[in-house]
Amino acid sequence: MDEVNQPTEAAAGGRRSRGERGAAGRRASRAGGGPNASLPYITRKIGVYEVLDEEGLQLIERNADTILEEIGIEFRDDAEALELWAKAGADVRGQRVHFPKGLCRELLKTAPKEFTWHARNPERSVHIGGKATVFAPVYGPPFVRDLDGQRRYATIEDFRNFVKLAYMAPSMHSSGGTVCEPVDVPVNKRHLDMIYSHVKYSDKPFMGSVTAPERAEDTIAMAKLVFGDDFVENNCVTLNLINANSPMVFDETMLGALKVYARHNQASVVSPFILSGAMSPVTVAGTLTQILAEVLAGASFTQLIRPGAPVLFGTFAASISMQSGAPTFGTPEPSLVSYGAAQLARRLGLPFRTGGSLCASKVPDAQAAHESSNTLNTTLLAGTNFVLHAAGWLEGGLVSSYEKFMIDQDQLGMMQKLAEGVDLSEAGQALDAIREVGPGSHYLGCAHTQAHFQTAFYRSALADNNSYEQWEVEGQKRIEERANALCRSWLDGYEAPALDPGIDEALLAFIAHRKESMPDAFT
Amino acid sequence: MDEVNQPTEAAAGGRRSRGERGAAGRRASRAGGGPNASLPYITRKIGVYEVLDEEGLQLIERNADTILEEIGIEFRDDAEALELWAKAGADVRGQRVHFPKGLCRELLKTAPKEFTWHARNPERSVHIGGKATVFAPVYGPPFVRDLDGQRRYATIEDFRNFVKLAYMAPSMHSSGGTVCEPVDVPVNKRHLDMIYSHVKYSDKPFMGSVTAPERAEDTIAMAKLVFGDDFVENNCVTLNLINANSPMVFDETMLGALKVYARHNQASVVSPFILSGAMSPVTVAGTLTQILAEVLAGASFTQLIRPGAPVLFGTFAASISMQSGAPTFGTPEPSLVSYGAAQLARRLGLPFRTGGSLCASKVPDAQAAHESSNTLNTTLLAGTNFVLHAAGWLEGGLVSSYEKFMIDQDQLGMMQKLAEGVDLSEAGQALDAIREVGPGSHYLGCAHTQAHFQTAFYRSALADNNSYEQWEVEGQKRIEERANALCRSWLDGYEAPALDPGIDEALLAFIAHRKESMPDAFT
Repeated sequence: MDEVNQPTEAAAGGRRSRGERGAAGRRASRAGGGPNASLPYITRKIGVYEVLDEEGLQLIERNADTILEEIGIEFRDDAEALELWAKAGADVRGQRVHFPKGLCRELLKTAPKEFTWHARNPERSVHIGGKATVFAPVYGPPFVRDLDGQRRYATIEDFRNFVKLAYMAPSMHSSGGTVCEPVDVPVNKRHLDMIYSHVKYSDKPFMGSVTAPERAEDTIAMAKLVFGDDFVENNCVTLNLINANSPMVFDETMLGALKVYARHNQASVVSPFILSGAMSPVTVAGTLTQILAEVLAGASFTQLIRPGAPVLFGTFAASISMQSGAPTFGTPEPSLVSYGAAQLARRLGLPFRTGGSLCASKVPDAQAAHESSNTLNTTLLAGTNFVLHAAGWLEGGLVSSYEKFMIDQDQLGMMQKLAEGVDLSEAGQALDAIREVGPGSHYLGCAHTQAHFQTAFYRSALADNNSYEQWEVEGQKRIEERANALCRSWLDGYEAPALDPGIDEALLAFIAHRKESMPDAFT
Repeated sequence: MDEVNQPTEAAAGGRRSRGERGAAGRRASRAGGGPNASLPYITRKIGVYEVLDEEGLQLIERNADTILEEIGIEFRDDAEALELWAKAGADVRGQRVHFPKGLCRELLKTAPKEFTWHARNPERSVHIGGKATVFAPVYGPPFVRDLDGQRRYATIEDFRNFVKLAYMAPSMHSSGGTVCEPVDVPVNKRHLDMIYSHVKYSDKPFMGSVTAPERAEDTIAMAKLVFGDDFVENNCVTLNLINANSPMVFDETMLGALKVYARHNQASVVSPFILSGAMSPVTVAGTLTQILAEVLAGASFTQLIRPGAPVLFGTFAASISMQSGAPTFGTPEPSLVSYGAAQLARRLGLPFRTGGSLCASKVPDAQAAHESSNTLNTTLLAGTNFVLHAAGWLEGGLVSSYEKFMIDQDQLGMMQKLAEGVDLSEAGQALDAIREVGPGSHYLGCAHTQAHFQTAFYRSALADNNSYEQWEVEGQKRIEERANALCRSWLDGYEAPALDPGIDEALLAFIAHRKESMPDAFT
């Protein structure tokens, strides 16, 4: 195992390297980013934006307690879960669990407020919680919109490409999880190829499989081949998306995955998946109340499995069109939900996940961008700790788009710069520059500008800021055409991070063994 | 003069009517808006986002005082201005004015913190300052991108069209000023046709001409024909854009217009026009310092002309590309400048102007949308009171775009809804709905949803949220194609607001007289 794969130094190495790599990374980012110029995760120097006052927060918390006690939450088809809840003092009636006031909050006292999500390259390990914000790519689409403009089913080749792009994007801090569904691989085996792709083509932290308990076990087994047995049992090396079946249900599949991950000390992102108007009331406050109740039940369940297991307060916030029933994104109501949920999570002392670059548009046009930008600005200012779907999401999450991935990752770079806040150092104050230039002149050549211009402003590799005439001469390209070209050049220039050949062989052997052990399944 | 044009009741009428029209207007807006469904100006129920702490603010204020005292601000080619400053106690050396510490702040104590900007239809009068936010269209472009996709010089016909669109857009609270430059009208006469168009084709508040003192006088004369002499002298009926020639210069033209408007009690929006790196230092803090110094000098000058004249703290924030020198928009640094400037304005007790839907893109693509959305989200959360360029801005402000106007005004509707914040009423809490539905069901048909679905969510008339298949059948349209169709339908369906025939005749007679009094000038 070479140094890059030495996981026991991960936490210290991650911290040590951040300062060293910071300046170079920031320079790279401002130059439009590109392969191998990755930035450390965001440590926000700006504050959070809040939409609820103390009174409003207490009201929602009281109402959530009422839901938990009076209405209850269903834990379906999982006898073990019901038994654990009964033992913990809950009132279990059939599959419905009623929680005495304060039980969930009491259980959550053992959950860590912050923790490290380890990458196989310690320099890429990230912090989850507090002032940290971590971006990860789109999760789950069965389709892609490819670089030839075709919308088609995703393949394992697409999967590898999105992992490569996530690895190369400077402000993408994780290579994510199901960056698309590789539907050309049998459904019961694709998790093996997915986890392998994350390890092979990236060295950023990755997410585990949650579609069945045995696939979660496979994820753990493969992680142990990469990080070592003890390390996995004592550190978080996978974040795992555990969706509630809102309203107020956790199903067998999600509970099965949650239990596996919590037992092995891996992080659960307990996320009510909410389209307001369908899975929750048509109001922001009502939606927040239900979200809080669901998270309290699901997140505290991780602590019944293993006290101290990391868990996130997740919120997937969207609405439905009350005319057509179609999901809508980037509208004001989900923004208010995200801001409010972030406040509730902070009060609960749990790291928070929401947002991303969500949209309903079928193409990366101005609709996609407005919806994504509204969501992403909200996500950052809410103080979100983990941001799934930060790049590549198109068409309500049905499609992973190469072009949109490139456009979104550029925006992530802007958010990372925004989060640095205002530099109030002497150089930042620039009073000497103002003195030097004086009234009626300009700053283009002054000493202060010369000294700072390279790092002064975020530099987009995709925005066209040239004159109309130059833009015309260059073919009147829209941003998605430039994104397409940049994406091709990144993929052409991709170079895999070093991976210990012993680990690679062990992973491939494990995968071969597991694939042989079961027949292909396609549903 | 009919009731619609009865200006003396404007303030009371405006207040009275807001409550009455509010619910209907909000419903209209949520249904995608459209002609004649205008909303009252925004009264923000959400808080402001801030990026500077007390220490940072004081530092910038001290540095601005240093600029004012040591470096000074130039008031060029205006002997009267220099004389007034000398009388007020400033140290005038040539055209350079040096301000003793505290002089500008002392003078600004007579400036109103908040005031009403009157429309000829009292229901459309708006509040400037405090928790109010007012949107106005793009200002200044010599070109348009028309509905046939042509980029060409703007005409008076385009000007009328943009006034009509601003009149019809529900979340546009003003018809603005120079919505485009009608270059087919002589440069010394076009202000007459512009002011007339604002009065004739809209009944929302409008802006005055600032390109020469005599054009400002014409604006006042025409306003008096609409509102009455006394009313104009005692109330604000025009907002007027007074740009500083940054760094640290006010020129003859702007000072001339400022003096006319301040003498007639009309509002000046004193706005440093900043492309950081060229007109200000390459840093956020340095830029904020210079902006504050320039605004202190320019805004306090209005109070030398007429104590009590309304004045705004303006900030036009953008950067330049340090590679090409081209202006860039929607990047993180101008956002930080806008947030910081809003804080400085609040401490100074002046209403604040910044932002809009700014972009560098040549077409309404995802670049345009991301840049606009970043700027607009910042603008709202900063607590901006007056937002010029809120819709239609394209290509760094060189082009007024019909399609982008439609896309932007839809986003303004979203911002207006976001500003309503979280409804914590019993209906908002929706606990009964959660009880009624229970675990595992859905909210689509429940009583609470039935009662509230019509007003629950902002409803975009432009976003396509349908299935991919339906979108394909409907011609795979991008949002700008839908915006184009919607724009045509609005212009086809336009109906002018009532205008007293006596006022109309008087305006036309005044214009004819003024046009006859001077030869055409085209430069």
